[in-house]
Amino acid sequence: MSIRIAVDLGGTHIRAAAFRREEKHPLKHKKIKTRSGDESIFGRLLHLIEEVIPAGETLEAIGIAAPGPLNPRTGIIIETPNIQEWKHFPITEKLKLHFGCPVYLGNDADLAALGEWQYGAGQGHEDLLYLTISTGVGGGVISGGNLVQGHEGLASELGHVTVQAGGEVCSCGKRGHLEAYASGTAIANYVEDQLKDSSTKSSLRSSTSRTAETIAVAARGGDSLAIAAFNRAGKYLGIGVASFLHIFNPSIVIFGGGVSESGDLLFTPFNASLRAHIFNPAYLKNLTITTAALGDDAGLLGALALVEMRSKD
Amino acid sequence: MSIRIAVDLGGTHIRAAAFRREEKHPLKHKKIKTRSGDESIFGRLLHLIEEVIPAGETLEAIGIAAPGPLNPRTGIIIETPNIQEWKHFPITEKLKLHFGCPVYLGNDADLAALGEWQYGAGQGHEDLLYLTISTGVGGGVISGGNLVQGHEGLASELGHVTVQAGGEVCSCGKRGHLEAYASGTAIANYVEDQLKDSSTKSSLRSSTSRTAETIAVAARGGDSLAIAAFNRAGKYLGIGVASFLHIFNPSIVIFGGGVSESGDLLFTPFNASLRAHIFNPAYLKNLTITTAALGDDAGLLGALALVEMRSKD
Repeated sequence: MSIRIAVDLGGTHIRAAAFRREEKHPLKHKKIKTRSGDESIFGRLLHLIEEVIPAGETLEAIGIAAPGPLNPRTGIIIETPNIQEWKHFPITEKLKLHFGCPVYLGNDADLAALGEWQYGAGQGHEDLLYLTISTGVGGGVISGGNLVQGHEGLASELGHVTVQAGGEVCSCGKRGHLEAYASGTAIANYVEDQLKDSSTKSSLRSSTSRTAETIAVAARGGDSLAIAAFNRAGKYLGIGVASFLHIFNPSIVIFGGGVSESGDLLFTPFNASLRAHIFNPAYLKNLTITTAALGDDAGLLGALALVEMRSKD
Repeated sequence: MSIRIAVDLGGTHIRAAAFRREEKHPLKHKKIKTRSGDESIFGRLLHLIEEVIPAGETLEAIGIAAPGPLNPRTGIIIETPNIQEWKHFPITEKLKLHFGCPVYLGNDADLAALGEWQYGAGQGHEDLLYLTISTGVGGGVISGGNLVQGHEGLASELGHVTVQAGGEVCSCGKRGHLEAYASGTAIANYVEDQLKDSSTKSSLRSSTSRTAETIAVAARGGDSLAIAAFNRAGKYLGIGVASFLHIFNPSIVIFGGGVSESGDLLFTPFNASLRAHIFNPAYLKNLTITTAALGDDAGLLGALALVEMRSKD
């Protein structure tokens, strides 16, 4: 029988799994470090895929989730954080040559949206907005049952949407983006900035590691600076999501990423802000707002969903 | 033979035209005032449609472009400017009862995008962004060959996207939307605001009618306040469109609406701002930026394109 391989390619780990058609539980599954010794990353990837193919099975197709920017149409990774040696790397062509089967590539946030849609929290919806809030802010969108990819596959960069023209500097170097206000990095930067004023009182002043995670702990302990940092992130997240509802009118919004696990700290100010910034209540009617269901498997199951989708084209 | 009727329903005029399948030149075409005497608007619409059906022809389907908010899935006009008597008006159901054929309804900006895609400036593109800049700012989007409509048909309200949190008040009552900075109304409001300062020198001070159109005339005459008003609108339009490119990665951006006819006055600052705010040059590669080709026919041909699209569903 024939099987499909899904790969989640990250800067730290690579995961691969083999699936039978129409099944979401893998036959075989393995996770390795992206780097080890002198072996090239591409060499490690080849061996990993070979290892997860069960004996006697025919390979039908391979799907790969990778951090962008990348072009899903040409199958080229333009560049990718933490794998500096890959610039304009034709990954699908190289894998196709080696394995002799179709290979599909997708952006990890897009594929997380696709995975949640097919196998997770978004099942049954045709208009879905997925936002991942972690170090940065990423997005993936299903509109009318179609993945929004754009002409060159560069669409749904929802973190790089201006919410405050001329505002805070974003990780990309431009100003006023949603990511510069609502990401884990933005939460930590805000705390650092406020602590520059020596009159600001906070338990975080003596902390050796100030990240969104430690700031969340301080906020739960009642630290007012930490609470203010999450309030600000939630407020801007509400402004951004209101715009996304006006743009896409989804029936479900799904939050993934580490910072979205901070619960009420982020979502109480987010909900208040969203309601204050929607220009017509119709956008909130029949709208589900929820957190991702697939956790660490989002990329892998998204890559599997990509194979399903492209096999039908 | 069977024919298709397209209707462009506006607050001032209603236009209707009959088309043969696969043809974009009407067999018969008529435009009337939306209101006249005591006749109801719906009665006038019925008579207009009856008049444009050529003798001996069978009616295959009717497509209608109308200003929103409306629900294209249920065929209900929720409310519409200048036709106050229509609230939650089930226009497609009523026309279907009368004419006994399928009736399709769409938002006028969405259908202008669809019309430009099928018959106008956007032919051959699969990822298209249409923006109309007039009294307000409206939008329509084709993504991967599909019209972006959203769960309730309320998508692509591109004028109501926040570009400056806490900024200028928009026509919708919320703050900081693109429409509050880049519409004809915003251009006129900016001039009024600046003239409140009695030290502001401008030929517009003595003008009896200050609209985007008269301000454009003053700008062409070298009036520095008028030029500043267009520079500001163009700057924010560039910020907004940069975000839309990050969101949709289209291969073409088409501008319609009266204010987009002001040429370099708007587009020189727009282009500079767009280039300054794009976070990766890949979004501008192979991107066409142009003005609408269909002019006043956009709504009518959009309604025709809607019939084509829905007949295939």
